[in-house]
Amino acid sequence: MFNSLGNFLNLTTFGESHGKAYGGIINNFPAGLEINFDKIQYELDRRKPGQSAIVTQRKESDTVQFLSGIFEGKTTGTPIGFLIENENQKSKDYDHIAASYRPSHADFTYDQKFGIRDYRGGGKSSARETINWVVAGALARQLLPKIEINAYVSSVGEIFCEKPYQALDFSKTESNEVRCPDTETAGKMISKIKEIKKQGNTIGGTITCVIKNVPVGIGEPVFSKLQAELAKAMLNINACKGFEYGSGFCGAKMTGSEHNDEFNPDFTTKSNLSGGIQGGISNGMDIYFRVAFKPVATILRLQESVDRYGNAVTVEGKGRHDPCVVPRAVPIVENLAAFVLADLFLISKTRNINQF
Amino acid sequence: MFNSLGNFLNLTTFGESHGKAYGGIINNFPAGLEINFDKIQYELDRRKPGQSAIVTQRKESDTVQFLSGIFEGKTTGTPIGFLIENENQKSKDYDHIAASYRPSHADFTYDQKFGIRDYRGGGKSSARETINWVVAGALARQLLPKIEINAYVSSVGEIFCEKPYQALDFSKTESNEVRCPDTETAGKMISKIKEIKKQGNTIGGTITCVIKNVPVGIGEPVFSKLQAELAKAMLNINACKGFEYGSGFCGAKMTGSEHNDEFNPDFTTKSNLSGGIQGGISNGMDIYFRVAFKPVATILRLQESVDRYGNAVTVEGKGRHDPCVVPRAVPIVENLAAFVLADLFLISKTRNINQF
Amino acid sequence: MFNSLGNFLNLTTFGESHGKAYGGIINNFPAGLEINFDKIQYELDRRKPGQSAIVTQRKESDTVQFLSGIFEGKTTGTPIGFLIENENQKSKDYDHIAASYRPSHADFTYDQKFGIRDYRGGGKSSARETINWVVAGALARQLLPKIEINAYVSSVGEIFCEKPYQALDFSKTESNEVRCPDTETAGKMISKIKEIKKQGNTIGGTITCVIKNVPVGIGEPVFSKLQAELAKAMLNINACKGFEYGSGFCGAKMTGSEHNDEFNPDFTTKSNLSGGIQGGISNGMDIYFRVAFKPVATILRLQESVDRYGNAVTVEGKGRHDPCVVPRAVPIVENLAAFVLADLFLISKTRNINQF
Amino acid sequence: MFNSLGNFLNLTTFGESHGKAYGGIINNFPAGLEINFDKIQYELDRRKPGQSAIVTQRKESDTVQFLSGIFEGKTTGTPIGFLIENENQKSKDYDHIAASYRPSHADFTYDQKFGIRDYRGGGKSSARETINWVVAGALARQLLPKIEINAYVSSVGEIFCEKPYQALDFSKTESNEVRCPDTETAGKMISKIKEIKKQGNTIGGTITCVIKNVPVGIGEPVFSKLQAELAKAMLNINACKGFEYGSGFCGAKMTGSEHNDEFNPDFTTKSNLSGGIQGGISNGMDIYFRVAFKPVATILRLQESVDRYGNAVTVEGKGRHDPCVVPRAVPIVENLAAFVLADLFLISKTRNINQF
Repeated sequence: MFNSLGNFLNLTTFGESHGKAYGGIINNFPAGLEINFDKIQYELDRRKPGQSAIVTQRKESDTVQFLSGIFEGKTTGTPIGFLIENENQKSKDYDHIAASYRPSHADFTYDQKFGIRDYRGGGKSSARETINWVVAGALARQLLPKIEINAYVSSVGEIFCEKPYQALDFSKTESNEVRCPDTETAGKMISKIKEIKKQGNTIGGTITCVIKNVPVGIGEPVFSKLQAELAKAMLNINACKGFEYGSGFCGAKMTGSEHNDEFNPDFTTKSNLSGGIQGGISNGMDIYFRVAFKPVATILRLQESVDRYGNAVTVEGKGRHDPCVVPRAVPIVENLAAFVLADLFLISKTRNINQF
Repeated sequence: MFNSLGNFLNLTTFGESHGKAYGGIINNFPAGLEINFDKIQYELDRRKPGQSAIVTQRKESDTVQFLSGIFEGKTTGTPIGFLIENENQKSKDYDHIAASYRPSHADFTYDQKFGIRDYRGGGKSSARETINWVVAGALARQLLPKIEINAYVSSVGEIFCEKPYQALDFSKTESNEVRCPDTETAGKMISKIKEIKKQGNTIGGTITCVIKNVPVGIGEPVFSKLQAELAKAMLNINACKGFEYGSGFCGAKMTGSEHNDEFNPDFTTKSNLSGGIQGGISNGMDIYFRVAFKPVATILRLQESVDRYGNAVTVEGKGRHDPCVVPRAVPIVENLAAFVLADLFLISKTRNINQF
Repeated sequence: MFNSLGNFLNLTTFGESHGKAYGGIINNFPAGLEINFDKIQYELDRRKPGQSAIVTQRKESDTVQFLSGIFEGKTTGTPIGFLIENENQKSKDYDHIAASYRPSHADFTYDQKFGIRDYRGGGKSSARETINWVVAGALARQLLPKIEINAYVSSVGEIFCEKPYQALDFSKTESNEVRCPDTETAGKMISKIKEIKKQGNTIGGTITCVIKNVPVGIGEPVFSKLQAELAKAMLNINACKGFEYGSGFCGAKMTGSEHNDEFNPDFTTKSNLSGGIQGGISNGMDIYFRVAFKPVATILRLQESVDRYGNAVTVEGKGRHDPCVVPRAVPIVENLAAFVLADLFLISKTRNINQF
Repeated sequence: MFNSLGNFLNLTTFGESHGKAYGGIINNFPAGLEINFDKIQYELDRRKPGQSAIVTQRKESDTVQFLSGIFEGKTTGTPIGFLIENENQKSKDYDHIAASYRPSHADFTYDQKFGIRDYRGGGKSSARETINWVVAGALARQLLPKIEINAYVSSVGEIFCEKPYQALDFSKTESNEVRCPDTETAGKMISKIKEIKKQGNTIGGTITCVIKNVPVGIGEPVFSKLQAELAKAMLNINACKGFEYGSGFCGAKMTGSEHNDEFNPDFTTKSNLSGGIQGGISNGMDIYFRVAFKPVATILRLQESVDRYGNAVTVEGKGRHDPCVVPRAVPIVENLAAFVLADLFLISKTRNINQF
């Protein structure tokens, strides 16, 4: 249903950029799991603003409180409610754009759709919403302890990490501000972002996500194929413009004899252009996909625009914004992917009477 | 929910490649619409096999029968059941692979997930399932008479239609077998496919889809953003490997000052790198997206593989297959997009008390 | 979602009284179950018209065809499509009421809601729809081989079966036309129905349903409690006016000390006024509930009414109708209950990590 | 889906009796409605404990905070999050029953289903959950300003309010502690409850709910009939044992000629045994239904029971409990009914193309 994530394992959320709080409810999370709260807060800390010189300086502690569904440290199988209070709202920053529509923001579309909107900081359209997704995903991840999910920044502007993911050491992803495990490329990316920041501009990029040890059989064709659920989740992230998995858009240039993944007798495949999914169901090989993010729309420059009454106006970004949102999107991509997998994993427990 | 398309307007389907029939039920379709049945059959004819030398020669009339929900030519608001009988099943073609897993097919994953599968023609994993989607989409399209949806083949292998969509005449899309409206490029694509076919091989490609005249306000953030629903629908199509909209993956290389779409006073935008969607909601500009398809997995060549018991085997495609599925996917992309839009359009009628 | 039954195990249906066919799609039915088709047809035969002198004489073979989801006699885990053709439609019987609204029928409300309706035989509002439910329920029942579900007619008009269900021999339910296992009461009920039929009138009644051997733990509080799902399913049956379980409306007259079910050390309870459910979850004791049916609205008498234009008219039932629908509702109640249980049973497989 | 109320307008909730807070998220509430917060708090005050001598003395302010979805007093069409903090938890009251199963409580079933439970005050199974439902229902009610919903206590134990609802003055419902608008009957009910309370016992009762001015056309057959949605909602209320609407169980004793509601030329009906619903759709007449509640399970008497290890134990209720929960259930019934109606009302805006 609208406004919720997941088919069976289910996240419903609320919150606006400058409201009192964000929060959500996770339904159908199984009972009996001992929760590691530090790991959840760790993921929130990776996402939060103010971590480094290359991201927004808004200061938020982004501390999650769990309000239900957990008893003596373990899940009880009942709804898990959680809350993250907003601390550092500066609503006045937005008075000057209360009636104006910022280019490539959602101001115009929300206003037209609903006839009313909370204009402060983008209101409901703010990417701060993804804080809820990280909480839910970080929890879901604990359901799948054997599965390893590693995302990293694979490009910033024209700077690409040319190495294939197999050549990277994911333990280095957190060793630099831009979250690219290839140190040399990371250096170039950071320089580029700093340069862009100085210009009052912003820049886009891509994230690659690699998922190892997914059991065979996850995914629900024909309308909830694993890749379709991943694509939907990723395209819901603010600024996301594209998704590809396995061979992706390159695969469209290839022939069948180049592209097919022949089997080994142990059911692994010799190549993995399929990206770990066949017919919408995981096949046990690595799942990998790539997500494109446009540059952040708020730039510290004058732009031509319009107000809600149809008057031409100019707008100019002020204050605290991200020159490149991609590094902060890394934990969002990872934890969203975990949520999607957990949803489909749970349902896979019901698909075969021999499991009962 | 799993195995259904759409959040409110809803399609549930059944059918296997070599079963008795395909079919589906469309729920929550509004009452009072006079149905043009010829237009529905027209879309099915565009999708059906055996249309030309560059697609599979399986012969099916693909005639849809409507069984309910329509009275005296008009929808009644009750469930619309429909049926397409399978006519040309040749089950024996598949006896030799009953226990074998074909590379880059879903044989292995279905077998592992369910412990049983109908191996004939891929069973449930066959792309013949999309026949149901075309019926439902062609019906949904009639709900949105002002919206124009045009998809076309924008690349086959390395051959790209270099012109931007604005420079193309969509009335020419159906004038050639490959469904590329640029006649010169179409010729190259057809030659390429014929060459590939002769080699017993297959080739991938991309489809671009352009949607005009979408009213402002369609899309349901934060978890059913218009682009996310489109992406999910497209990634469910067999062989689809990627989705991008607006600036897509190119947008990830750009800066904010290049990418932002400044407003005109009439609320149109000077550029449209956003692809007609802001914050998950249509903004009235053209929506455009691109979908990547891998080459068909069935090739008329020997491949190394494995059977369900773990024995190394070789498999070889036989009989009637598509050297390039992309031309036949054009009506699938268009009609799926129509279904997604109709779903979100209907729900938009409930979002604002001033509409009541 | 609307127009579908079940939360996870899911039935979507179509069909109208005088359309071409009824049918449905069952989603998320697990793979690997060997289907006994005779048992499904047996339940349809119990429901079908023309069985005896006390029900409608419409003749239908009511033969179900399965179109997908079953391979070599076993379920494959993919959608199960089925079809029942209408054979004995006499549309002309209804021409005289095309514009009239029959008292206590759904003619007026459908017309107002949708602005159009198929008036033949009640169109979508016909109880013939329940044929789909019996198919799905009879299939679901085979998922739960240990659970015994027995419904019977517990009253017709003022004639009640006074014995508690524990004193009845359910093997006798099918031994008489009225489906009351107490032979003496059954005789009185049959006489009453014949008398009512002679008068061109109809009569209401109740059905009691008893479910044994339900495992502990079925039911999903707080919004899908087992009793709530049963109530919803039953209230969707045409002519149903009420539902009670366990002590029911009598329980509202009692005190806590009378009503509480004290525990035995083996976790059974000394009494069972709870009706086998606590907090919305089965407790292992017998589940029992009672359903009330109003008299059929079609009577062979002149009644005052109105046509769609607001003209006063008289209407008079003609032809083939049920003087008492309750005996034919017995298999509907049983099989609907089976479907509800199977839905909640499947989902119970995901509620506890110790099950994985 | 499980654990949420409503098909389109949707409430998801969390909270346990002795957790930090209750709360919920309302999705798909339309934009632009000016909220009267006092009316919402008024409904909560009617439900809250400690109002009078005949209900539990637990003291809670039950103040709702809205955290999102409302801007400058109006709904924005985005998710409405709300919170009610628990203030007066006395967890130690429950230490003595941590391992024991109280008769006719959900202790045993929750423990079996989930393998873990928060035993304090019944945890998730506590009726305090209904506080969330009242908030959501009171908000939904404001969407339907013309519809009048009045519930009242129609029986306590064997004491019945014999007058038909048409003879009652609903403005008197709140004039006495038991919420029966017939003052004389109310007096008898209050005496009965005080007597029962003195005995450390509890007593059941029924509530009748009358809904006026429902527009024609609300309800979604065949699986979301208006009566079915009402029944499901009511049966989810703790202690509810039965639901009937219109003629209800009495209708099962009647003949068609007695029961049919003949039409007047203005489309009203001469009688209304149908209870305002035909074929699952409102017909514009009064909707009325009756709900049965068993006596509260917690009694201040020794009872035989068992602990989770299978040891025979005795348990005895202590502290603050309701001798009769029915008066406090009146606002729950009313506001739940409002929520069900609002859900179906919103969706009715999409059912007919002539509405667009």
